[in-house]
Amino acid sequence: MTANSQPQGQPFGRLPILNLSPVVEAGRWPAKAYVGEVVPFQATVFREGHDALGAELLLTSPSGVQTIHRLKAGAPGSDQWGTSVLIKEQGRFLFQIRAFADEFETWHHNSTVKIAVGVDEDLMMLEGINLFTKAAAEETRSKANSKVLLAVAKGLADSKLSPKARLALAETAEVIDAIEAEPIRNLITLSETMQLISERERSGVGAWYEFFPRSEGAVFDQSSKTWTSGNFKTAALRLPAVAEMGFNVLYMPPIHPIGVAFRKGPNNTLNAGPQDPGSPWAIGSAAGGHDKIHPDLGTESDFKAFIRAANDLGIEIALDLALQASPDHPWVKTNPEWFTTRADGTIAYAENPPKKYQDIYPVNFDNDPEGIYNEVLRIVRHWISFGVKIFRVDNPHTKPVAFWEWLIAKINHESPDVVFLAEAFTRPAMMHALGKAGFQQSYTYFTWRNTKWELESYLKELAHESAAFFRPNLWVTTPDILTEYLQFGGPAAHKIRAAIAATASPSWGMYAGYELCESVARPGAEEHIDSEKYEYRPRDWAAAEKSGRSIAKYITKLNQIRAAHPALRQLRNIEFHHTDDSAILAYSKFIEAKHSPTGKADAILVVVNVDPHAVRETSVHLDLAKLGLPYDVNFEVTDLVTNQTYIWSASNFVKLDAFAEPVHIFSIGQVV
Amino acid sequence: MTANSQPQGQPFGRLPILNLSPVVEAGRWPAKAYVGEVVPFQATVFREGHDALGAELLLTSPSGVQTIHRLKAGAPGSDQWGTSVLIKEQGRFLFQIRAFADEFETWHHNSTVKIAVGVDEDLMMLEGINLFTKAAAEETRSKANSKVLLAVAKGLADSKLSPKARLALAETAEVIDAIEAEPIRNLITLSETMQLISERERSGVGAWYEFFPRSEGAVFDQSSKTWTSGNFKTAALRLPAVAEMGFNVLYMPPIHPIGVAFRKGPNNTLNAGPQDPGSPWAIGSAAGGHDKIHPDLGTESDFKAFIRAANDLGIEIALDLALQASPDHPWVKTNPEWFTTRADGTIAYAENPPKKYQDIYPVNFDNDPEGIYNEVLRIVRHWISFGVKIFRVDNPHTKPVAFWEWLIAKINHESPDVVFLAEAFTRPAMMHALGKAGFQQSYTYFTWRNTKWELESYLKELAHESAAFFRPNLWVTTPDILTEYLQFGGPAAHKIRAAIAATASPSWGMYAGYELCESVARPGAEEHIDSEKYEYRPRDWAAAEKSGRSIAKYITKLNQIRAAHPALRQLRNIEFHHTDDSAILAYSKFIEAKHSPTGKADAILVVVNVDPHAVRETSVHLDLAKLGLPYDVNFEVTDLVTNQTYIWSASNFVKLDAFAEPVHIFSIGQVV
Repeated sequence: MTANSQPQGQPFGRLPILNLSPVVEAGRWPAKAYVGEVVPFQATVFREGHDALGAELLLTSPSGVQTIHRLKAGAPGSDQWGTSVLIKEQGRFLFQIRAFADEFETWHHNSTVKIAVGVDEDLMMLEGINLFTKAAAEETRSKANSKVLLAVAKGLADSKLSPKARLALAETAEVIDAIEAEPIRNLITLSETMQLISERERSGVGAWYEFFPRSEGAVFDQSSKTWTSGNFKTAALRLPAVAEMGFNVLYMPPIHPIGVAFRKGPNNTLNAGPQDPGSPWAIGSAAGGHDKIHPDLGTESDFKAFIRAANDLGIEIALDLALQASPDHPWVKTNPEWFTTRADGTIAYAENPPKKYQDIYPVNFDNDPEGIYNEVLRIVRHWISFGVKIFRVDNPHTKPVAFWEWLIAKINHESPDVVFLAEAFTRPAMMHALGKAGFQQSYTYFTWRNTKWELESYLKELAHESAAFFRPNLWVTTPDILTEYLQFGGPAAHKIRAAIAATASPSWGMYAGYELCESVARPGAEEHIDSEKYEYRPRDWAAAEKSGRSIAKYITKLNQIRAAHPALRQLRNIEFHHTDDSAILAYSKFIEAKHSPTGKADAILVVVNVDPHAVRETSVHLDLAKLGLPYDVNFEVTDLVTNQTYIWSASNFVKLDAFAEPVHIFSIGQVV
Repeated sequence: MTANSQPQGQPFGRLPILNLSPVVEAGRWPAKAYVGEVVPFQATVFREGHDALGAELLLTSPSGVQTIHRLKAGAPGSDQWGTSVLIKEQGRFLFQIRAFADEFETWHHNSTVKIAVGVDEDLMMLEGINLFTKAAAEETRSKANSKVLLAVAKGLADSKLSPKARLALAETAEVIDAIEAEPIRNLITLSETMQLISERERSGVGAWYEFFPRSEGAVFDQSSKTWTSGNFKTAALRLPAVAEMGFNVLYMPPIHPIGVAFRKGPNNTLNAGPQDPGSPWAIGSAAGGHDKIHPDLGTESDFKAFIRAANDLGIEIALDLALQASPDHPWVKTNPEWFTTRADGTIAYAENPPKKYQDIYPVNFDNDPEGIYNEVLRIVRHWISFGVKIFRVDNPHTKPVAFWEWLIAKINHESPDVVFLAEAFTRPAMMHALGKAGFQQSYTYFTWRNTKWELESYLKELAHESAAFFRPNLWVTTPDILTEYLQFGGPAAHKIRAAIAATASPSWGMYAGYELCESVARPGAEEHIDSEKYEYRPRDWAAAEKSGRSIAKYITKLNQIRAAHPALRQLRNIEFHHTDDSAILAYSKFIEAKHSPTGKADAILVVVNVDPHAVRETSVHLDLAKLGLPYDVNFEVTDLVTNQTYIWSASNFVKLDAFAEPVHIFSIGQVV
């Protein structure tokens, strides 16, 4: 029996327990969490009749320590019980729910209502004496606790006191605490045991930056009309600025040799010139395949130095794992069985008939599964040996899901810190399956969710419905995606999208050039013109900064706010608030003091004008309980972007000028 | 390994298959169906990349015959595949989903788009030849099928024909049929196996009537001021009228001896007089307990004769299983451990503190589970030996769910035809749990769903979300429930509620007196005044019929429509249509010809004015596909209540006068 076994054909226990969460496909796959995440645990627990019920979460940590967490009853009639737990340890947790008849609560309720009307007073005292005496004798009960209960039993028997006074003896803080600490349980019922995998914090929380190392420091010589590629040494000069902006992961497109056959030229044209560097995703040449570094970028030792330089600045390197080959890839000769051979004996290139992509040979995973599976395993291990612990996987949805499940399990078994990010933009079933198969993170539909309604419904889905298996990384741009919203929204649009990505999700990312609001598209396409995928694209960062075109300082501010506010490093805690305007989105994130790494509660409220072309004003109506506040109070809010402080209440007027500051990011302060 | 085992920790197969349905709690309990039910089977099936996919349902009947049903792809992007199957056999079905790479469809799609633009023509012919030749050689393929495929392979090689002409050879009806019958499957993947329990038709389909046998033929002697109870012989005289109205189940409140201690008088008063018969639910007296018949009703042989008389009229008898005792019940002396003894040594009566119900001792299932479980088993078997096959279970939600699961499994194992109806009016989690535990049917919230919005959302829930485990029996009244809607809605309300109950659900029921529109409530209560629960209540049916107060003919018509229209004997096929009025509800039920017992498709459209106090008019906008019709046609509809025929189209004006006919029940006829 595996630890996450389901009770097939298992009848109801004495007290029904159903719908444990977080659970993925009834326990077929473990639910996910990350170190530092506050995870809500829930179950449907109920019983026959009217007597009281209690429920507890029994949570066993990877190191084998069991903790018990009392569940609270949810909305009346829902029979939902829940609590939340801060996950502190990495590894495999086990959890189950324990339900019990709450004998104290049943007796206390009945006694209270009966004594209030003078019914059965002696009988209820007698019942209480029996209850406390029996409970005090339980073998598992602590001596101190038993002593408290016996004292109550004695008091209940004291006929000199009125029944009301005697009942009050069972209601002291000392008694309530004793009962809370060690409930009087009867009809104890255990649920099945479920699994929760806790991964390292970076699997859930990170600010990602993407650049092409060949562009950083690339030089065009006007006289000779020739390019000199950037390399790891020149690219390393950009690292301090990336760190300064607050990013802690740097993802680079494939760093391997690039094929020559059918190489693509600028703007994806078919005939590349001799100065065209080719797409990094056309992997493999005479210089080698997936386990080699493009000679233009430098040597293995240059790459190691680059990793060290990044790590010293608090940045991790994420490599691209793109399982496809150029026709020049060594595999084509050594292992043609890893591709598809067509009826005419040629190797099949990528197609979306009748379109042809002759520069790419897709891998066939079914001809020689053992061979290709192990080759990919070897490659991933190879780069892990360089210190790489993050892989952004290109188009995982065009490879068998079963392959990813095998690979990730294998790697994570030996290297539990390795994180895989799925670059899948496809239908929901596949996106979700990749998460279940083990991907720690995924790209999302966020780039195409721009209106208030779209954002609200999608962010709810990400934070609640799919959070147990699908961890979003909200990218505002990629080299493949430049949405119309950004093409035509100017700097306001860039600030809006970055602010939402950075605050709504604990992981977000941007592709170099976003901070310069680069937004000219290839006509008719949702992609940058003169795409860096096919060309060197050095940027003059210093000049851009001086020109005022840059929003790097805004980006820096966002990442600073993220670093300072633990509420923003949670995925499942987002709550939406009503506003009267169709373009003003309001949401908050809250973390309780007991779960916060600072030891203090933290609440952030974000109010965004998602219309980058207008000034909008509206009322924002807050559900104060969601901010950890009592009903009907006034309190300070500080806009962390402008540092302005306001006094707010449950309903507030806001005016957001897209051309000034389209977003409020408020820290909730003192009640005044 | 049990047959419905879930693959815990089971990785993805080569082709992912998820979310099988109908499945209850991931297979912990089998899904339910009844003989004659059309059951939708679905799964989420998808694959990497762009190649085509096929999916099949492998269904194994209780007698061990496996049938294969090809699934159809659902909405684009949903990756949902489904089909529906008419369940013809009673017992335990097993089902699993088989997914496969559809090699023919992939080749055919690619060839079609390439040949249209003159690309790779020879190559695609070659690929086709390989495909068909290899498939023809499959060991499991029939010879006739192989012959068809080889002929295609030969044709594709015929260079005298154009590629287009050769492709056409693979598109003939003969070839398509051959491929459909025996697909060319690759990468075959099987899902886990799930269970579906098919129960007899009456577990899902029935028209129920409830009466108190003591009332039928009860006589009050004015001179002596004494009552003579009705009995099985006098009650049998009412059976022909019940059958005439079209009911096929007669449910009677408990027929056992009634306790004398703390007997309730008229209107639930505390002091019964000598002429008060007491509540049938206060079971047990010196004359015996749950296995005895009230002496006033007759002997065991009278009861057997009554059952025979009912059966001869096509009516089954449903007994009440009410597990509680009067203080006079024999158990109180023989088995006091089956009750709760209080601290003062007395037996606990029913309470909802501070309210007391001293005429009832609730059963305690935890003191001596083996004893009381087996005693109930004995009682149920006892009545089964009389020919009783239906039990209406009183308040099952006040007994342990685990007990019911044990009892029903035990009984159904030896008597698979026995049906249990749960009279649970409580929170959703418990209502649903009782269904999962094995109850074949349940009372519902229907009585309190009166507005269009309430009905539409609740009926959707019943037909779709919970249909795999919770079978609704829509009662319009019970001796416990007389809603304000009926109290103040007059005959219109009674017709409306009966028409909805009878057409929206395959099981419905009413309590005697409904056909007379008895609707005077005890002031402030949601219950009849002078409740039959505490009094004899003979009714003068003949006089009522003459007076014009009766809607018995309307009820008769409803049951005739149900009997004539197979679409109405399905639960899961309800579909709602838009109307512009907030009180006009429109829904339809459709059954395909291939699933219909008549061999003909059947479509019923119900349009109801749920406002019993007004004339309403509106437009009804029909989704014609849901009625089995093409878009944009005119067609005949016949109102089965009035026999009037109209010509309808996608949008239609209706006027429904609550005081004349508040409901149209249309049979959809010919397209004109």
